Amino acid sequence: MAYELYYWDGIQGRGEFIRLALEEAGADYVDVARGDGPGLGTDAMLDIMKNGTQPFIPFAPPFLKDGNVFISHVANILLFLGPRLGLSPEGEAQRHMANGLQLSITDFVAEVHDTHHPLATSQYYEDQKDAAKIRAASFIKERMPKYLGYFERVLQENAAGPSYSVGNALSYVDLSLFQVIEGLLYAFPKAMEGYASRCPALMALHDSIGKRPNILRYLASERRLPFNEDGIFRHYSELDQQVG
Amino acid sequence: MAYELYYWDGIQGRGEFIRLALEEAGADYVDVARGDGPGLGTDAMLDIMKNGTQPFIPFAPPFLKDGNVFISHVANILLFLGPRLGLSPEGEAQRHMANGLQLSITDFVAEVHDTHHPLATSQYYEDQKDAAKIRAASFIKERMPKYLGYFERVLQENAAGPSYSVGNALSYVDLSLFQVIEGLLYAFPKAMEGYASRCPALMALHDSIGKRPNILRYLASERRLPFNEDGIFRHYSELDQQVG
Repeated sequence: MAYELYYWDGIQGRGEFIRLALEEAGADYVDVARGDGPGLGTDAMLDIMKNGTQPFIPFAPPFLKDGNVFISHVANILLFLGPRLGLSPEGEAQRHMANGLQLSITDFVAEVHDTHHPLATSQYYEDQKDAAKIRAASFIKERMPKYLGYFERVLQENAAGPSYSVGNALSYVDLSLFQVIEGLLYAFPKAMEGYASRCPALMALHDSIGKRPNILRYLASERRLPFNEDGIFRHYSELDQQVG
Repeated sequence: MAYELYYWDGIQGRGEFIRLALEEAGADYVDVARGDGPGLGTDAMLDIMKNGTQPFIPFAPPFLKDGNVFISHVANILLFLGPRLGLSPEGEAQRHMANGLQLSITDFVAEVHDTHHPLATSQYYEDQKDAAKIRAASFIKERMPKYLGYFERVLQENAAGPSYSVGNALSYVDLSLFQVIEGLLYAFPKAMEGYASRCPALMALHDSIGKRPNILRYLASERRLPFNEDGIFRHYSELDQQVG
């Protein structure tokens, strides 16, 4: 039976981390909210969220349905899918390591979101632009190098070599790191121009993931939505800046 | 061998969610950074973070050491400890459900933090007070009722009854919800005065956890640090407000 992915239509957002894992594995899945017909579309997703499908109550999309099992939160979904898609390391310690890295990615992505929404998610970006400039400047100067430097170090110090973040095989963490770099290149091209040379292993990982056959095919398909200013990674030139 | 918990000294912070699980279970653990002597103290924690203890590289505390296994991020640590401490539901679906709830708690706690640090974690609260007032107002008006209402619904719709959040037994999620309510009562007493009556099952869970023998003993001990204005839950009266 096909996996059912539930996520907002129109943006890559947090759903994209799940899509990349499903696409790389060539898994059979339905992107429910983006579909047409019975049981598909945004209303089908909202029905589950509002009416409740016990014992599952999601706080927010994305969530995944696999038969009778519902799972919410990106890292939790990937923890579940990883072994099923062949995108998870073996062994408990390694799986917790992958999950820990994914949770650092979760935090990084939340901070990216807050660069354009520092005061209230319920308000327009245009109504919090001045605060966004301050938050984005601190993000670029302090947080980006901290996170990028961290993931670079994880790759560089991997005993199996810098090609993957956990052990000697591709995992969902690597696919998520690809998406983070893609997003940063879109949202903060000037800042990334300065940082790319400081994280060579991370950029090499990004490039190698982008050349994998299933990923290449996915990125060229209509299933891959373009980045836009409704998603998490947004390009507002006034928030981007060069780094010294 | 005792579990080793690594977290900043002087605050409850994110480490407290781990402490509550260890204390409820009566587990043998060392709170490393708060200790004195060889291999203890904040420097011992920083040594691991800076020098790297391959293959483990933590992004930030808290992290846990169990023999040769290192694990970082609160939800990840609780996922690991849960079955060992008897604080996790049985079965894969239920464990992912508990993990999903814990990740919603993680997000809630991050939003609590950002009420006093909306612009930059590196700057003092006093230097971002005006922005904090806007963010806190939005948090109290929109986010608190959304999260509290969510967890109330999870309890109310639990097929096994509203005493626990997952199934019919205590889990680490319940202990974390206790801590969230404790923190909100400290940080936003006026807002909580308005919200408490709207989430009776959540407040009942909070009260029942607070009466468990091991928790009572822990809260009365010196191991329980008081809330303060260096932690995540901070009381700044100018950020708190009554709700209609």
